Amino acid sequence: MARKLSIMDSGWLMMETRETPMHVGGLALFAIPEDAPSDYMESVYRFMVEVDGVCRPFSQKIQSRLPGRLDAAWVEDRNFDIDYHVRHSALPRPGRVRELLALVSRLHAQRLDPGRPLWESYLIEGLEGNRFALYTKMHHSMVDGMAGMHLMQSRMASSADENLPAPWSGEWDKRKKPRKKSVAVAAKAGVLDGAGSVRRGAGQLVDLLRLPKDSNVKTIYRAPKTVLNRRVTGARRFAAQSWSLPRIKAAAKKHNGTVNDIFLAMCGGAMRRYLETLDALPAEPLVAQVPVSLRSADQAEGGGNAITTVQVSLATHIASPLGRLVAIQESMQAVKTRLGEMQKSDIDAYTVMTNMPLSLGQVTGLSGRVSPMFNLVISNVPGPKDTLYFNGAELLASYPVSLVLHGYALNITVVSYKDSLEFGVIGCRDTLPHIQRFLDYFEASLAELE
Amino acid sequence: MARKLSIMDSGWLMMETRETPMHVGGLALFAIPEDAPSDYMESVYRFMVEVDGVCRPFSQKIQSRLPGRLDAAWVEDRNFDIDYHVRHSALPRPGRVRELLALVSRLHAQRLDPGRPLWESYLIEGLEGNRFALYTKMHHSMVDGMAGMHLMQSRMASSADENLPAPWSGEWDKRKKPRKKSVAVAAKAGVLDGAGSVRRGAGQLVDLLRLPKDSNVKTIYRAPKTVLNRRVTGARRFAAQSWSLPRIKAAAKKHNGTVNDIFLAMCGGAMRRYLETLDALPAEPLVAQVPVSLRSADQAEGGGNAITTVQVSLATHIASPLGRLVAIQESMQAVKTRLGEMQKSDIDAYTVMTNMPLSLGQVTGLSGRVSPMFNLVISNVPGPKDTLYFNGAELLASYPVSLVLHGYALNITVVSYKDSLEFGVIGCRDTLPHIQRFLDYFEASLAELE
Repeated sequence: MARKLSIMDSGWLMMETRETPMHVGGLALFAIPEDAPSDYMESVYRFMVEVDGVCRPFSQKIQSRLPGRLDAAWVEDRNFDIDYHVRHSALPRPGRVRELLALVSRLHAQRLDPGRPLWESYLIEGLEGNRFALYTKMHHSMVDGMAGMHLMQSRMASSADENLPAPWSGEWDKRKKPRKKSVAVAAKAGVLDGAGSVRRGAGQLVDLLRLPKDSNVKTIYRAPKTVLNRRVTGARRFAAQSWSLPRIKAAAKKHNGTVNDIFLAMCGGAMRRYLETLDALPAEPLVAQVPVSLRSADQAEGGGNAITTVQVSLATHIASPLGRLVAIQESMQAVKTRLGEMQKSDIDAYTVMTNMPLSLGQVTGLSGRVSPMFNLVISNVPGPKDTLYFNGAELLASYPVSLVLHGYALNITVVSYKDSLEFGVIGCRDTLPHIQRFLDYFEASLAELE
Repeated sequence: MARKLSIMDSGWLMMETRETPMHVGGLALFAIPEDAPSDYMESVYRFMVEVDGVCRPFSQKIQSRLPGRLDAAWVEDRNFDIDYHVRHSALPRPGRVRELLALVSRLHAQRLDPGRPLWESYLIEGLEGNRFALYTKMHHSMVDGMAGMHLMQSRMASSADENLPAPWSGEWDKRKKPRKKSVAVAAKAGVLDGAGSVRRGAGQLVDLLRLPKDSNVKTIYRAPKTVLNRRVTGARRFAAQSWSLPRIKAAAKKHNGTVNDIFLAMCGGAMRRYLETLDALPAEPLVAQVPVSLRSADQAEGGGNAITTVQVSLATHIASPLGRLVAIQESMQAVKTRLGEMQKSDIDAYTVMTNMPLSLGQVTGLSGRVSPMFNLVISNVPGPKDTLYFNGAELLASYPVSLVLHGYALNITVVSYKDSLEFGVIGCRDTLPHIQRFLDYFEASLAELE
């Protein structure tokens, strides 16, 4: 029973090249239980591979016979081979987070096999501090953006004693009521409801493009060309770290702002520092492409699409940390005001119109050679507030591992988990040196606002 | 200073697909010295990455602008990134050879980045028995067949105290006299010296093709179609084990044969057992493609090409182990007699003519869909007789990791090291199940002849 891919999802397959694999990942850190036996890691691996069948979407692969994959459909993989998808790895000593990030950087650079279900999960032992890690990658055509991480988290337990099958176990198909609604559907991209919306969406875009380039109100094609906006190779560097949410909230309160304001200011400050070190800071402010949810958290459970992307100034041209924060807040407020004036269907049209050139740029090979639409993608996604468990082990941290594109060599994504904001920075290893320095720069930029 | 690739070497680039990466590898096992400090593995890794420049061929990448890579040339990689090429890995506990083979199977399935020098080396810690491993892969366009392993071994020390730089260190370029002559040149394929040779080579081929299919005298296109001769996927399984050379020599003496006779009989017996288990044993004998050196070991030091490939019956249709050995010996003897009657230039022509269809089959996509030229490639290559050392650690074993092609899903290669014959079996994970069983089947087939 084949299920055809949407044009948007097929697009992720079409955009994939050796240099730009189109999968997203999650890196989760767990505590080894105190009473764990010496063969504990082997038992976790067995828990992961000794499953009673495999559920969707983990069981399905792409079937396509036409060039360009226009007929791509999901079909069950009859030769499903769990040992291929679930892998047991280890870190060399001393097993610091540094060694973990080096391994994840390598694993994230490898393309998924297009002839199999488009996911792999790595159980990684040898992490110091009595911890272990789980790195899972899924193709973007299988799960949108953060949906993969949400899918994994929705299949973790809420206590150490609760027994749940592995996230891909066939037992999930047998459960009549899914424990939590999968977010996969909710994160799908918009569908236009009529030609009128397209006209109004286009009108919004034309209005915004008429604004001067130094205005705080941003849209696509208002970004300076920077080192971030070059062609990429297939190699990656991943950096990750947790920041205290109460700390960020205190800074937000001090400056009459939101957590997201402080987060964007941390990004703006870090980008300014990074580009200054490379002697590559442009005179005009960097523009971030930011996915925005249009609904409250309560509404999100209902499913359906309510996400758009907006362009926000990171005010990297302003030296003063406080001045930068204010400019970022103004830019974000201008976006919100404008979105508030638009109808839902017009926003959908605007979303599609501002994202279409991105896909076209990838497929035509122009991206990274012409002016960038924006400088980088920055996402801030709410995550679980309560402690989660995987096969009895407590989830300590959960970092998103996103993707980069030609012309967009860096991505910063954060998710919240309990009292932390979990930063994941992914970049092209060859285009951008010293990506791990962003972690220091985030910290310095937060400290400036405290 | 660009150095153009030969047509043969360009061929390896042209034949490469995601399903058939064209690199070869070596897996070396070492003893951790008894007095090693706790950070010994980190010091080995530093020895590997903290090099004073990088020597050829490790420093060179492919430059090519034309489609089909007809203009491919080796050029120095100005952005050479040693941390990319030399990697530090570890095995999950208990760190058996089983876990090592699983890791090497995965690593060998990944294509090398065509935008960089075409090699990677993995230092692998966590191997039980106080050992560590080194897995190195190089593209076939960079080093022919076994030449990569010979290159690595030629840069190992002959005592624990001898200090040599890492195999890729730039210091090798500064040494005026190379310590041992690289075998890379010696293993290059033949060049025809005239049209007469082509005619005589073709005549030999036509003569052989006229022989009945059940004759012990084999050439290309006399092989039955088997499960080995299907299209392959990109996934691999690698199995490896050492056998005692004195044991094999004793069996050879008992049957008035050579070590190579017993080796081929081990392969024939294992293939018969394997195909019987799959209920897929053909009525006609399997035909192995076997590279043969045309010179004595003394002459080999002189360099230049003297290798051809011959087709030998594995006599898998004969149930009796002794009858199988005799048939294999007769088939090999017939090949030797025929080669002895041919001139060197005619052999070169015959070699090129019998190997050309192999490359064509890969590039046209016909291989694995039409009748196979032979059933599998089996190589037996002499290796070092004395103990080697790497950064003070004794080399315990050294297994070749070869490649598979569409239509040729299995390869058995052995090298000798001291008193051992080191077997490496590489196969397509999806085409051929249970490749690790070959190790048991080799043992059973040897025991039958003792």
